[in-house]
Amino acid sequence: MSVPSQTTIVALATPVGISGIAVMRVSGPLALSVAAKLSGFPKNRFRDRYAVFSPVRDPDGHEIDQGVLTFYRGPRSYTGEDVLEVSSHGGTVIPNRIMEACFRLGCEPAGPGDFTRRAFLNGKLDLSQAEAVADVISAKTGVSHQVSYRILSGNFSALIHQMKADLLRVVSVVEAELDFSTHEIEPMPRDTKRKMIDTVLQSAQGLLNTYSTGRLLRDGATVSIIGRPNVGKSSLLNAIISEERVIVTDHPGTTRDAVEVYYQLDGVPVSLIDTAGLASTEDPIEQRGIQFSREFITKSDLILWVFDITGPPSDILEDVSHPFFDAPFLVVLNKADLLTESMPPDPLAGRNRSPPIVVSALKKTGVDVLARRLINTLVSSDLTDQEVLLTNARHKKALEDSVRSLKMAEQLLVSNGEDELVAFQVRDGLSHLDRILGITTADDILDNIFSTFCVGK
Amino acid sequence: MSVPSQTTIVALATPVGISGIAVMRVSGPLALSVAAKLSGFPKNRFRDRYAVFSPVRDPDGHEIDQGVLTFYRGPRSYTGEDVLEVSSHGGTVIPNRIMEACFRLGCEPAGPGDFTRRAFLNGKLDLSQAEAVADVISAKTGVSHQVSYRILSGNFSALIHQMKADLLRVVSVVEAELDFSTHEIEPMPRDTKRKMIDTVLQSAQGLLNTYSTGRLLRDGATVSIIGRPNVGKSSLLNAIISEERVIVTDHPGTTRDAVEVYYQLDGVPVSLIDTAGLASTEDPIEQRGIQFSREFITKSDLILWVFDITGPPSDILEDVSHPFFDAPFLVVLNKADLLTESMPPDPLAGRNRSPPIVVSALKKTGVDVLARRLINTLVSSDLTDQEVLLTNARHKKALEDSVRSLKMAEQLLVSNGEDELVAFQVRDGLSHLDRILGITTADDILDNIFSTFCVGK
Repeated sequence: MSVPSQTTIVALATPVGISGIAVMRVSGPLALSVAAKLSGFPKNRFRDRYAVFSPVRDPDGHEIDQGVLTFYRGPRSYTGEDVLEVSSHGGTVIPNRIMEACFRLGCEPAGPGDFTRRAFLNGKLDLSQAEAVADVISAKTGVSHQVSYRILSGNFSALIHQMKADLLRVVSVVEAELDFSTHEIEPMPRDTKRKMIDTVLQSAQGLLNTYSTGRLLRDGATVSIIGRPNVGKSSLLNAIISEERVIVTDHPGTTRDAVEVYYQLDGVPVSLIDTAGLASTEDPIEQRGIQFSREFITKSDLILWVFDITGPPSDILEDVSHPFFDAPFLVVLNKADLLTESMPPDPLAGRNRSPPIVVSALKKTGVDVLARRLINTLVSSDLTDQEVLLTNARHKKALEDSVRSLKMAEQLLVSNGEDELVAFQVRDGLSHLDRILGITTADDILDNIFSTFCVGK
Repeated sequence: MSVPSQTTIVALATPVGISGIAVMRVSGPLALSVAAKLSGFPKNRFRDRYAVFSPVRDPDGHEIDQGVLTFYRGPRSYTGEDVLEVSSHGGTVIPNRIMEACFRLGCEPAGPGDFTRRAFLNGKLDLSQAEAVADVISAKTGVSHQVSYRILSGNFSALIHQMKADLLRVVSVVEAELDFSTHEIEPMPRDTKRKMIDTVLQSAQGLLNTYSTGRLLRDGATVSIIGRPNVGKSSLLNAIISEERVIVTDHPGTTRDAVEVYYQLDGVPVSLIDTAGLASTEDPIEQRGIQFSREFITKSDLILWVFDITGPPSDILEDVSHPFFDAPFLVVLNKADLLTESMPPDPLAGRNRSPPIVVSALKKTGVDVLARRLINTLVSSDLTDQEVLLTNARHKKALEDSVRSLKMAEQLLVSNGEDELVAFQVRDGLSHLDRILGITTADDILDNIFSTFCVGK
C-alpha cells in the first residue's frame, strides 16, 4: 500500500481570512525544488526542519511576499514524504498568488484530506487515527475534542489491537488443533475458547453502547424549534442562548428563513434551529421558509415543539397527537408570563408522554429546566467520562459485523460445530476489526473517508 | 523608543476556522520558557529557527495536541524579540486551549497590531511599512496587493527619504549661511534654494495627486444601488456580478436589509450594495431597511441611481433634481427590454450631466457599458501603473502639512523673507515627512494606527 506518491500536492493549510499568517503546505518529490524556486535560494539553504526567512517569488521573478519556508525531509514529516511549509502574510491575495506559483512549478492542488491520506498510506497513522484528525479539528467543544483526541492518540486503536490479539490467540489454538492430532497437543476445552471470544464480545458490545453518546459528542446535536406562528419560537431561542441573535418583532412570520445558532450545553455542541412558522401560506417566500423547516426537522436529533400556553389546550392535543415527523420531541408551553390565573391543567395529562415544560421566553423562566431536560434527553451522562467512546459510523458498522461473526463462532462452539467453521468465523470477526484500522480497506472506502476532510489536511 | 518589552504576548496568527493548521505566535522574554513548558522538553531542544515536533500540554500536564514549535531568537525575528510559533491542528477548540495554556504560563493576549508595533519599535520596519503590513494582508485584489506591497517593500519610504535628503541639503545651506558670514562662505542664490524646494514640492504634489486612486485601489470602492421599489435594483446587482446572490422576486420590497457583495472590476475591489427600496413605509422592518440605505449612501464613493425606463420621465427628472445625498451618481435607466417603441428621449437632456446609462438587467444588455462607466468614474486609469501610489489618509495629511510649510518657505525666498524663517519652515516640512516614517510620532497616534490591525499581526 505504501507506494511513494509521484505527484506533489499543495494546499492552503490555514483558513481563508484576514490574518497575520497563512500557511501553504507542499508534499511530494518536488517539495525541495519548489522551495528553491520560490525563494531563489540554492537547495542546500533548506536544511531539514530549519525555518528560512525568504522572499517568495512567482516563476517570472515577481516578488509576491516575504515569508518563512520550512522544509521537512521525508519520512520525518507529517505525510512521510518531503514536505515544504510556506508561511506568508495572510489575507486572500497573497496565498492565492503563492498557490498559483506552486501550480506553475509543477504542484497539483490537493483534494480534501490528501495530506492525511498520504500519512496513512505511508504508515504514519492507522485509519481510525487518520479519521480522528478531521474530528479533532472540527471539534466544537472541549469535550468533543477530548473524545476525538483520545482516538487520534491511539487509545481507541489500542483497544482494537487488544481485541485482535485476544481473537488471534483463539484462532491460533483452533487452527493448531486442526493441524495437529490430539496425540500431539492437548486440546483446549470448547468452553474456554467460548469464554475467550466472549471477552472480546463484551468489549465490542461495551463500545457499541457508547455510540449514540459518542456520536453526539463528536458531531453535536441538532435541535429544531418548531411551532405555529407567533408562539415565540425566536424568543425561546434567544432565551436559551441568552443573546439577541435573531430579530424578534411582534409581527407573525418575521423569521423568514431558518436561523441556525451554534451553542454548547455542558460541553455538548448543540445546533439550535429556529424554523419559520408552520402555518400554510400563499406567500412564496414564507413557503420557502417552511420547506427549510421540514428539511431541518428531518435531520434533527430532538425537536422543541412550542405552544402558546394561553391558547386552547385542544389545539395542543390535536397537533401533538398527529406529529408530521418521526424525531423525538419535547413539548414546550411558552408565554407563562401571560397566565392571569393559576396554571392550566396539563393538556397532555394521561397521554403517557414526558410532561410539557412550562417557560416564559420573555421573562426567561423555566429555560434552565428546559436546557437540563434537553441535554438529558440527548446524552447518557454516565458515559461522558469513559476513556474511549465510539464516535464513527464506519467503526460502528465494522464492530457490528465483527460481533455478528463472533456470536456465530460462539454458537458453533456451544452447539459442537466444526472447528473449521469456528476458525472461519473468528477470522471473519478479525477482518472486520482490521477494517477499522485500515489494514484491509478498499480504495473507494478510503476515497469516501478522506473526502470529508478539509483541503490542506 | 526601542525599549525591550517586559511583557510576553500571544495571539492566534491564523484565521479562526476549520483547517489543517493553526499558528499561535508568542513574542517577548518568556517565549523560550513557554516553549519548554508547553512541550515538556528542555530549553536547549529549541535551537534557533528549528521546527520541533512536540506534544503541546497545558500546565496541568494534559496533552492538548501534537504540534510543531519553532523558536526564533531575537533580534532575528519578526518583532525583533524572542518569538515562538506554535503550529497545531486547526479548528476552534485546540487553538483556544493552547492560548489558555499560554495565558497560564504568563503570556498576555496581544491586542490588534501588537506584533507589528513591536517590530516597528525595535526598528525592523518604519511606520509607513508597518502600516502597509495590514494593507497587504487585507488586499482584496492583485492590484491592491501590488500597491500596498510596494510600500511594505520600502519603495514609498525611499521616496520620502529622497525628499528628506533634498530638504536637508537646503536647510544645511541656509543654516550654514546663518552661522557663517558672507566672507567665510559663498551664499547660494535664493532662486537656487527655491528650485531645490520646488523639486520636493513637485514630488509631494505628484504623490498627493495619486491619492484618490491609491485609496480606492487599497480600500476598494463602495458603490450603492438605490432607487424606488421595483425598479430592479437587485436584478441589476445580479446582472453586474453575473451570479444569483440576492433573492429576486416580483414582490416590491423583497430586499429588506441591504445586501453587500464584494466584486472586482479591473482589479479594483468594489463593494456593491443593493439597498432596500426608498419608498416611505409604515412597516417597521422596511423602515429599518431604509435606515441602512441612508447609512450606505453616506459611505458610498459612487451611487447607481436606478429608474424604470418605462416610467414617466418627469419622475426621474424630479428625483434627480433633488438628490438627498452628496455623493456622485450615475443615472441608470433599467427595463430597456420592456420598451415597446423606440428609445424615449433622454429625460435629463440639456441638464449638463453625464448621459444616463440604458440597461436591461433582465436581458443583461448595457451592463458592460455600465461597468466601464463605473470604473472610469472611480479610478484614473493612467495612475494604476505608477510605481508608488499614496494610499493612506495619515500620509496624505502629513504630505499636505509638509507642502504647506514648503510653500511658505518658497514664498519667503521669493519675497526676500528672513533666512531664519526659511530654515524654520523647511525644518517644519521635514518634520511632517518624519511623521510618515514614524520618526516623530506620539504614542496615541501609534495606538490609533495599530488598533486597525488584526490581532496576531
